[in-house]
Amino acid sequence: MSSSNLFEEKTVRTEQIFQGRIISLQVDEVELPNGSIATREIVRHPGAVAVLPIKGDRMIVVEQYRKPLGKSLVEIPAGKLDGGEDPLEAAKRELMEETGYTCPTIRHVASFYTSPGFADELIHLYVADELVPGQANPDEDEFLEVTEVTLDEAKALIREGRIEDAKTIMAVYAWQLYRLTGSYA
Amino acid sequence: MSSSNLFEEKTVRTEQIFQGRIISLQVDEVELPNGSIATREIVRHPGAVAVLPIKGDRMIVVEQYRKPLGKSLVEIPAGKLDGGEDPLEAAKRELMEETGYTCPTIRHVASFYTSPGFADELIHLYVADELVPGQANPDEDEFLEVTEVTLDEAKALIREGRIEDAKTIMAVYAWQLYRLTGSYA
Repeated sequence: MSSSNLFEEKTVRTEQIFQGRIISLQVDEVELPNGSIATREIVRHPGAVAVLPIKGDRMIVVEQYRKPLGKSLVEIPAGKLDGGEDPLEAAKRELMEETGYTCPTIRHVASFYTSPGFADELIHLYVADELVPGQANPDEDEFLEVTEVTLDEAKALIREGRIEDAKTIMAVYAWQLYRLTGSYA
Repeated sequence: MSSSNLFEEKTVRTEQIFQGRIISLQVDEVELPNGSIATREIVRHPGAVAVLPIKGDRMIVVEQYRKPLGKSLVEIPAGKLDGGEDPLEAAKRELMEETGYTCPTIRHVASFYTSPGFADELIHLYVADELVPGQANPDEDEFLEVTEVTLDEAKALIREGRIEDAKTIMAVYAWQLYRLTGSYA
């Protein structure tokens, strides 16, 4: 594995297509390593955090409607970074807003790009396993149902296609690894 | 967990913003469960496949430049579905094109939405652990470096932030679970 600029694509031209409330879209014309020209459709996103909340032998999940899919999904608590926000602070905030729980010892598990082919969204995943109950406070345009499931239930929901969110499946795998090895990653 | 239309957001108006070569973008005005109106920025994507290729005690990864990030990433072989293509066939095709290997017994691990907040991209993840060598044949605008890493090396690369792709981290976790439990998921 070599430098992180391997096969760099130099920007020839950038066309700004859309600047939205959350994402923006641009189309870049790029020069490939062989000198030919290609276009790249690129979505910019502010980045996000996700939290695996562990409460005894259960994890806390939230079900919410996802308009891009036209259905609701079962996911771990998550949310966008508010401009310049520290990811750890954002993770604590989202956990509290969506579930009411706080956690003094929230820990980083992994950070990852969700769709590197067309988007720059980076998610920071944390685990919160010392939960202190409190009052949930979702955003005004956010409607959530909070549920708790065991590891076996979560694995079954993945197999049945009822948990079908990438960060949530990754969190369930990390939780199972923790149970087996004592380490989340 | 209730119906998959929980907290449905009814479309009031759709504005088509962009129709690209790969993705499209629309902005929907929606009616929330409390009757108020919100906007949703939605990226449409054809869906993709990813393959974890296991060769003895190593997995095969490819490093390629990702223009949205301005750097190259280490990932498992993956690619978009060609219009209407069967995901299993696409997985076999991508494995062969990017690494040269074929696999008669490729198996499904999980399917997941990568960014359900703003995109409908669905990735189908497979494992290929009976590899037959052959000739790689990448797309003409695709430049790849193929490498092999052990599980311990892959875990270290995740910890060091050198593997930072969601589907690849998920695949490494699934591989470790297979080593520990005999099942990929």
